[in-house]
Amino acid sequence: MFESAELGHKIAKSVYKREVPPLREALLDAQFDLLQSKKFPVIILVAGVDCGGKGETVNILNEWLDPRHIETHALRPLTGEELERPPMWRYWRTLPPKGKIGMFIGSWYSEPLVDNVYKRISNADLDQRLERIIRFEQILCDEGALFLKFWLHLSRDQQKKRLTSLEKDPDTRWRVTDSDWKHYKKYDRFHQVSERMLRATSTAESPWLIVEGTDPRYRYLTIGKTILQSLRERLDAPEPPKVREPTPPATMAIDGLRVLQTLDLSKKLAKGDYEDELEKWQGKLNRLSRHDNFGKIAVVVVFEGNDAAGKGGAIRRVTQALDARRYRIASFASPTEEERLQPYLWRFWRHIPHRGRFALFDRSWYGRVLVERVEGYCAHADWMRAYGEINDFEEQLVRHQTVVVKFWLAIDKKEQLKRFDAREKIGFKRFKITEEDWRNREKWDDYEQAVCDMIDRTSTEIAPWTLVEANDKNYARIKVLKTICNRIEAALDRVKK
Amino acid sequence: MFESAELGHKIAKSVYKREVPPLREALLDAQFDLLQSKKFPVIILVAGVDCGGKGETVNILNEWLDPRHIETHALRPLTGEELERPPMWRYWRTLPPKGKIGMFIGSWYSEPLVDNVYKRISNADLDQRLERIIRFEQILCDEGALFLKFWLHLSRDQQKKRLTSLEKDPDTRWRVTDSDWKHYKKYDRFHQVSERMLRATSTAESPWLIVEGTDPRYRYLTIGKTILQSLRERLDAPEPPKVREPTPPATMAIDGLRVLQTLDLSKKLAKGDYEDELEKWQGKLNRLSRHDNFGKIAVVVVFEGNDAAGKGGAIRRVTQALDARRYRIASFASPTEEERLQPYLWRFWRHIPHRGRFALFDRSWYGRVLVERVEGYCAHADWMRAYGEINDFEEQLVRHQTVVVKFWLAIDKKEQLKRFDAREKIGFKRFKITEEDWRNREKWDDYEQAVCDMIDRTSTEIAPWTLVEANDKNYARIKVLKTICNRIEAALDRVKK
Repeated sequence: MFESAELGHKIAKSVYKREVPPLREALLDAQFDLLQSKKFPVIILVAGVDCGGKGETVNILNEWLDPRHIETHALRPLTGEELERPPMWRYWRTLPPKGKIGMFIGSWYSEPLVDNVYKRISNADLDQRLERIIRFEQILCDEGALFLKFWLHLSRDQQKKRLTSLEKDPDTRWRVTDSDWKHYKKYDRFHQVSERMLRATSTAESPWLIVEGTDPRYRYLTIGKTILQSLRERLDAPEPPKVREPTPPATMAIDGLRVLQTLDLSKKLAKGDYEDELEKWQGKLNRLSRHDNFGKIAVVVVFEGNDAAGKGGAIRRVTQALDARRYRIASFASPTEEERLQPYLWRFWRHIPHRGRFALFDRSWYGRVLVERVEGYCAHADWMRAYGEINDFEEQLVRHQTVVVKFWLAIDKKEQLKRFDAREKIGFKRFKITEEDWRNREKWDDYEQAVCDMIDRTSTEIAPWTLVEANDKNYARIKVLKTICNRIEAALDRVKK
Repeated sequence: MFESAELGHKIAKSVYKREVPPLREALLDAQFDLLQSKKFPVIILVAGVDCGGKGETVNILNEWLDPRHIETHALRPLTGEELERPPMWRYWRTLPPKGKIGMFIGSWYSEPLVDNVYKRISNADLDQRLERIIRFEQILCDEGALFLKFWLHLSRDQQKKRLTSLEKDPDTRWRVTDSDWKHYKKYDRFHQVSERMLRATSTAESPWLIVEGTDPRYRYLTIGKTILQSLRERLDAPEPPKVREPTPPATMAIDGLRVLQTLDLSKKLAKGDYEDELEKWQGKLNRLSRHDNFGKIAVVVVFEGNDAAGKGGAIRRVTQALDARRYRIASFASPTEEERLQPYLWRFWRHIPHRGRFALFDRSWYGRVLVERVEGYCAHADWMRAYGEINDFEEQLVRHQTVVVKFWLAIDKKEQLKRFDAREKIGFKRFKITEEDWRNREKWDDYEQAVCDMIDRTSTEIAPWTLVEANDKNYARIKVLKTICNRIEAALDRVKK
């Protein structure tokens, strides 16, 4: 795999001097077009062997390009805020928006590599972590990011030479750390694990480019030209046509039977029973939230449902039981300007709670496979892939000891009409039924299909959907509270062990 | 000061039951109007004696209002990311946007109070910290925030009763901590310092309201009604007319002599000398950035200047000397949607570097007193007060061991024309002169006046402006590098001591 990067590639000084100025001009031009068009974000990874020139390369790129529109990120110790969240959170928060360039030195590859070389994680663990990385990069690629991954390689001899010569010069001595030499002694093992890693994570959309690191001029020119070519190609490509029409349903049971139809919406809870149950379950939820081990978990609750199904009321019954310091509610309507410049999951990653906290989502990432699908705001391929992306996202939360509870509050069409009519009559502005609500109602069947597909594809053992019969508000609220309590209890049991 | 809050205020259960439902309706209505109009943000502080009911009150408010549009913040230990920045950064990052409500328990008042009671800080230190708080709140009020500060008071006897009764009940025992009893023993001292604090920080725009905490019904109703009344008043007030026209200059020397005119723009540096100096100062800057003590300081560099004065080129000469991992460049054009819903300084607080790092600002908070003033984007009063706000902001940075270096790159009108013309000829898109650039040029004198006022009012000993004669790019770049080096060197000297 590294054969071509040990051939002793070299670029003469004169060639370099001749080629750099036009390359720089072209790069700046391309970067300007990128910035103006905001067509896509660019993610440049510079990884590779120790002292292979990662830092220098990134510095040169910052010099050639306009550094005002680049953010460079190096691996540093995790901050407390990052430790409190799933591992990929730290990367989501540093993603460049469309139009900008993010450069990552080492990046998400460094840790798994070093951990495996030093046998802190098994090969199976390594594969699992690489799998996570692949999915992460895949989402970003699917969302339009241009991914460029450079691996700077040095042969064993070259690396030794480099370390020695850096160490000799008092100006560069600081660059060589003890761990560099320690790593060097494990050159073969690094070589072997790197190869495995590069092989596993070279995908069609984000392949690795291995660059011989010996000659700086060769390294800079190769990388600079690759960036230019990729940028230019993508900038000049015609925009794919945007799908605006509603797309056909993803699946359709030929007998017409859908999971939502199996719900018994006539389920009811009498007022007296409701009050008893409410007290019981709110009390229980409150105690659970103050449990000694609650600080080891986090809770994410997703509320989705038909319009007027009673999400707001259900959320309030949950928050009543909790101390306001323990929860945050995130409500979602259309994305803001900053959010539109990022992958669709980005705006939800922003609200992931740290441990010991609740995050209640009033609508959520499922908008992608509900409203965006039905209204045709995104292409068929986009919402189809979203199921997998969402499952993966939730898996990351669950692995980080986050309890993911998801509710679909279901009412029937008749009940909705009744509530719409009632709301029109009360006259409270905040309950006002909008034109949009009526329009959504007309698409009842499309939404139902979307909901059924969503449940089929995203109700997983680790993050199951709870369908809530919500024609009767009392019944619905208690079911919500009870479900949350049971899920938290189970999680606290697991944590204890 | 607390006399009226020891009268034994009480609300009968029947009165409470009658009054709460209409109050809640009216509160929800007001909150809905707030959300729709996005007129202003609301900041509610609930502070006061231990176990005076702060948490319960905030929970009730979250129950009465729609909790989806409230964020509640309690004091918790500072995170690493917060420790790395000036103390108020943590509060700036939690401010509610226009249309929303932020509730703070204890908030920025708790620490100075407790620190002074336990004699960890002197009275003078307390006053200084209160002064900082007043300025912080003042900015937010001036930017339109509705501030409501409630102080929950208990008499000595009442507090003892409360602690004892909470402790008796197994369900509430957890609320009483050792520190509550420890504080109780210092009741008189707390009483005395609280009074001093409340007196000092009750301003016309954000006065304290002292509420007797003994009877929960009295407490909730009083606070609920106050919030409703203030919200309603502010929502229903007619909007003040927006000033759109350019406003008159703030000051004008009667002999017409301005500080910019004293610059000798003919200053030059020959190419050979430039190259030597560039190497020298870039080398020095690089070494300084790797100094052992550099991790104890942070560096903020502001680049302002006439259009085409060479800000970009100067920035590049700085970044060339630095490792890309050490700096971030923040460029500012018009604010994003999220930024427009916040006070104008908010978008700059977002980019304050942590220690050991550079933040280079390509344009900055000075836009307020330059383009916003000249173009009439904000009212006369708004940019006039900005000078003080900016000085205060920079003082906070400096106190946190941040070196603040500010450059005004000055060229004359003739030189600008020459550069505009040259740019039109080169034809690089990224240098293209826009309509706006020509329009700005027509307002040369207004801008010059604004710049002179800015320098007069914001060049302070701790954060001085450096005027850079920039008709000659070589001269300008070296002056920039040299200034940064000297300022960092001085800061490292101070840190050492």
